[in-house]
Formats: sequence, C-alpha cells, structure tokens
Amino acid sequence: MASQTDTDVTIIGLGLMGRALAGALLAEGHQVTVWNRTAAKAEELLAQGALLADSANSAVNASPVTISCVSDYQALQQAFASISDELDGRLLVNVTSGDSAQARDMALWTEQRGAHYLDGAIMAVPTTIGTAEAVILLSGSKSAFDREQSVLDALGTATYLGADHGLSALYDVAGLSMMWGVLNAWLHGVALLRTAGIDASTYTSFAVQIAQGTAGWLAGYADQVDSGIYPPDDATLATHAGGMAHLVEESERLGVNAELPRLFKSLVDRAITAGQAEQSYPVLIEQFTQESRTSSHHGR
Amino acid sequence: MASQTDTDVTIIGLGLMGRALAGALLAEGHQVTVWNRTAAKAEELLAQGALLADSANSAVNASPVTISCVSDYQALQQAFASISDELDGRLLVNVTSGDSAQARDMALWTEQRGAHYLDGAIMAVPTTIGTAEAVILLSGSKSAFDREQSVLDALGTATYLGADHGLSALYDVAGLSMMWGVLNAWLHGVALLRTAGIDASTYTSFAVQIAQGTAGWLAGYADQVDSGIYPPDDATLATHAGGMAHLVEESERLGVNAELPRLFKSLVDRAITAGQAEQSYPVLIEQFTQESRTSSHHGR
Repeated sequence: MASQTDTDVTIIGLGLMGRALAGALLAEGHQVTVWNRTAAKAEELLAQGALLADSANSAVNASPVTISCVSDYQALQQAFASISDELDGRLLVNVTSGDSAQARDMALWTEQRGAHYLDGAIMAVPTTIGTAEAVILLSGSKSAFDREQSVLDALGTATYLGADHGLSALYDVAGLSMMWGVLNAWLHGVALLRTAGIDASTYTSFAVQIAQGTAGWLAGYADQVDSGIYPPDDATLATHAGGMAHLVEESERLGVNAELPRLFKSLVDRAITAGQAEQSYPVLIEQFTQESRTSSHHGR
Repeated sequence: MASQTDTDVTIIGLGLMGRALAGALLAEGHQVTVWNRTAAKAEELLAQGALLADSANSAVNASPVTISCVSDYQALQQAFASISDELDGRLLVNVTSGDSAQARDMALWTEQRGAHYLDGAIMAVPTTIGTAEAVILLSGSKSAFDREQSVLDALGTATYLGADHGLSALYDVAGLSMMWGVLNAWLHGVALLRTAGIDASTYTSFAVQIAQGTAGWLAGYADQVDSGIYPPDDATLATHAGGMAHLVEESERLGVNAELPRLFKSLVDRAITAGQAEQSYPVLIEQFTQESRTSSHHGR
C-alpha cells in the first residue's frame, strides 16, 4: 500500500553513529524521522527538528529513504519484525555491521518487499560523519545510489562499489586487515628499535616512509595478480625468504615477539615448496586464496 | 703503519650491488679502487677508470674510505683475514647484510685497529644506486659520516641514524617487517574481494588509501607508546577484538586463509586478558616487546 511521505530520510537506530548520521542530515537541511528502541536517545535530535516515530514500521513509512544503523543483524531483525508489505518503492540503506552473507540475505528480504537495497559500511568514527573524511562504502542498486546521492553525500564521501550487496562488507573487512597489518608491523618495528634505546617517535617517520613506499608498489603488483604472471624484476620469493629468516632470527635473539615474521616466512616457504621460489612476491596470492593448513591448531 | 693513498674510495665485493656502488662513485668523478675474490667481475669498472687491487689488504690501503659489500659476514671475515694493523685513521663503511650484533662486533674489530666504522643497510635495488630513491641507512661514527658525506651522497640518500652501530641493521629489518605487513594484508584483502569476482586492480586503490590513512596515525600512536598512556579516543582494544573476530569468521566462511587475522586476534586477546580492553591499539606494544608464548610450537 502507498503511504504518505512526511520527511526525506528516516534513521533507525540512535546509537553514537545513528545520531551522528541524523545530525549530519539535519545540518544539511533534510527533514528527518528517527526511531530507536529506547526513545530517550532521540531527545537532542528532536530539539534540532527531527520527528520521532512511534514504531519502526511508521518510521520506515515516513520517508522514501531509511537508513538503519543498529548494533547487529539480530537487532535489525527485531526492529523490522513488524514490517510486512509497506516497503514498496522505498530505499533501505543498511549500515549495520555484518558479513557479506548477511548483507546479501538482507537484500533478498528487502527486494522481496519490492524495495531497493544498498548495503553500507562506514569507515569512520562518529565525530567525522558529515565531513569528506568519513568514507561510506555502498553496494547494491546503482540507480538508487544515483537517485539518493544528495542524501548519501550529506553523510560523508559516499563511495559506490558495485551491484553485489556483499561488497561493502568485504571492502570493510579487507580495509581493516590492511589497517591492522600496518599497525602490527609498525609495533613490531618499534619493539625491535626499542632494544637499542630508540623511542617510537624517532623510529616512526621511517616506518611511515616504508609503508607509503610499499603502498606505491601495489598497483603494479595488482596487475601481476590479475594476469597470473609474476616476473621477479625486484626480488624473488627465495630472496624474501632469506630476509624473513633473518628478521625471525634477529627478533628471537633480541627477545622480541617473532610470531608475525614466522607467519610471513611460513607462507613464503609453502609457496617455495610449491615451486615458486623464482617468482615475485604477489604469487603468494595462491596461499591467501586457500584455507590455511594449520587452521585446525587454532580452533574457532 | 701509514701507507700511500692512491684513490678516494675502495670497494670490496663486486656483486651486483658492489658494482653499482663503484659505478655511482666513478660517475661522480671519484677515484675508485676495487677488489673482488673473482677479479673478472671488475672488468667493466676498470674500463670506466677504476683501479684493481691485488689483495683486499692493498685495496683497503689504497683509499681513506673502504666500502665493503660482500655476500655475508663469513665472506667479510675471509676478505679481511689478511688485514692486521693497516687501518689507522681510515673509515670502513660496511653494507654487507647482517644483524645488529654482527654490526657491533665488526665495529669493535675495526676500532681495535684504530679506524672508524659506519655500518650500513641499503634500502634499494642495484639499479637505483646513485639516485635519491636509494636510501642508505648508516650508523656509527658521526664525525666520519660528516667528513665523508660527499662520497656517501654519491651512492643515494645517505641517512645517519645514530652512534649505535646496530641501528642500520635494526631499521633495515623493521622496514622489511613493515613492507611484508603491507604486502600480506593487501593480499589477504585481494583474496577476500576475489570471492565476489572483484579483481586485484579494482580493489587496490582502496587498499592504498587505507594503508596511507593508517600510516598517518602512526606519529600520534608513537606518542602514546613513548608516554605509556593509551587513551581510547578512537577505538578500544575490545572494539578491535570484535572486528578481528568478524574478519576471522568472514575469511573462514569464504575459504580464504585466516592465519593473519587469527594472529592479530590472538595478540589482542592476550592484551585484553592482561586487563587492557579499554585502552587504545598501541598498548599492544607490550605484546610485541616480549617473546611469544607460542614460540615453542614453531621451532627455530
């Protein structure tokens, strides 16, 4: 059934991030309806002009676009339990954290109700929402993304990834992997230099230079991965393995945690066993695209 | 005993890198003496004006500065076995790959012979030697570094790290740790996105953005490490642990290698067990500055 549209955007879920999203939309002059399981969280937004819905169902019916931002998919299902066939033609943008399978399931649920769906991942802390610094990854309906871009741009740098609804979740976790990869490698280096009395601040400008330099090689290495051809123009896996052995030994000799370089070396050793000693580093993609042989030692 | 000085610089070891170093010095107009266990490797350099010494001993005596660049410390000891007390006042710059302990031992050996010592690590491939792109890390005698800077600058961007002769080796392996950290995190992300049919080139600009963004936080995190105070202004370790669990699960569900995120989570879990759940990420330095509890499972 068609229903009257009272506002431009609805926000479901008023945690720190949901409130930041609603605030950014109000600041851009949008009419906003809000709903939260605990209504008290809406107070500040109501003072700024937001309207409070009395249920998730009426909230979704108040606007052509609903952004859901609750703690997890279980909370999302509870909030949406009362919604039946009222989504006709509307757009749901779901930025609740979940995995790619949950995003694809949610897309199916939404589309079965005749609505459009964008799955989102917010690569930002709440305080940066509404600025270009806040990257909002979105995947799903391209036409919906284009149509509602003014709403999405009010939240931050809205970035469309593709039609597969699982992409936002995948880019999100891949980006986190990069973040932790840089942070842990940096901490390992800080620990090594500390054995010589060098403080973290002194070491860090060098680490930043190496991180940025290495990031600069990735586009070329990506071409190698996509072509499946790994010419060792810079260094062979055998050379890397030698350097890794050296890093493991130096770490162990100095009493510094050596788990990270041991794992690096283990991955390279497997590729060398597979006959890839004379290929370039990105041939390791073949180790990353298969389950680890050691997973049974770790449990889940 | 004092001996006649015939040339500006001597290069001991004419592998790919040694030849590049000698070539860069000749190109800058320096007089160069060379020596290699196998003299044939010197041919091209002799055509460019280098002089060939008949022994390592006479090579070292031919110049006020000797740069040694052989395959490893064993080869270095063999080359230098014939040198007794002839190093008076000379400078030895040793860029042979080794660990920080070997560098400090070599400094002792050199200084016992009344000479100055700089230990070096070359962060470059031979083809970039002589350009600003080639970073040469040097540690040891500051006065020798200053006095011979025109020779050192001819090789690349000569960077002085400090008086401790072990620093070049430590910065070298710490930089390699960062390099492999970025490369492996990138490959893990490529493997995740490949499950959705996204190729490496499409994903990579995002990965570069995250790597650079994270590198931008390191200076602030270094201040936290140096002060030992870890305010969770951006995210707590508990929040990171939740994200890591999610990354492990998504990787396992998609059949992608999950060893890297499992190790990340294991480090964070230990810090949480130690009562640091509400502190910021760099508190993990306490995990990195101690031997891993699991080292006995890996062997050496």
